[in-house]
Amino acid sequence: MATDRLSTIFAALADPTRRAILARLTTGDATVTELAEPFSISLPAVSRHLKVLEHAGLITRNRSARWRTSRLRAEALREAVAWMETYREFWDVRLDLLDDHLRRLMAAPTPEGTTT
Amino acid sequence: MATDRLSTIFAALADPTRRAILARLTTGDATVTELAEPFSISLPAVSRHLKVLEHAGLITRNRSARWRTSRLRAEALREAVAWMETYREFWDVRLDLLDDHLRRLMAAPTPEGTTT
Repeated sequence: MATDRLSTIFAALADPTRRAILARLTTGDATVTELAEPFSISLPAVSRHLKVLEHAGLITRNRSARWRTSRLRAEALREAVAWMETYREFWDVRLDLLDDHLRRLMAAPTPEGTTT
Repeated sequence: MATDRLSTIFAALADPTRRAILARLTTGDATVTELAEPFSISLPAVSRHLKVLEHAGLITRNRSARWRTSRLRAEALREAVAWMETYREFWDVRLDLLDDHLRRLMAAPTPEGTTT
């Protein structure tokens, strides 16, 4: 189901270590050991994070290699970005309103008798 | 901390009911009762979802009104979109590579002696 898939992606992203793993994979495929290096967490903990990322479709894992490597699958983020884009107009509108308000404030003559 | 804030936002989005509530709020502010209507869940359950959304900064709640209303705060999504945008080049590159590959396949002459 589309909504469940989106929930799975967002849940996978809701962890700083998993986001850091994705960031590391932008520089190239990596083994569990390589991915664990910058973090003070165990290999099994990294493996659990990789499982979550794989389940969400955010990485693929090479199962045939002697040293199993993980690869970024950034395409999965497109779906999440597409969902968020539908809200872009709502924050843009809010900013437009603020802009109009500031413009009016600056255009208005200073009321007599007030000190600034 | 920036990463924790991002985790809070993604965790809030990792639920179809909460995303449906945000979608409903794009049409205007709403009370808990109004928000509960389309779902087969209790008012306390909706309240809990609203608390999560408010904590993530995705909605604000009017505490002074007789009937407390919730309002969309789509600006909070900008941060999450900004994070995702840093990965856009990776899925774009992947699509470019696929495109190149397909182009080469179509340009290549069929090897002699092979059947298709």
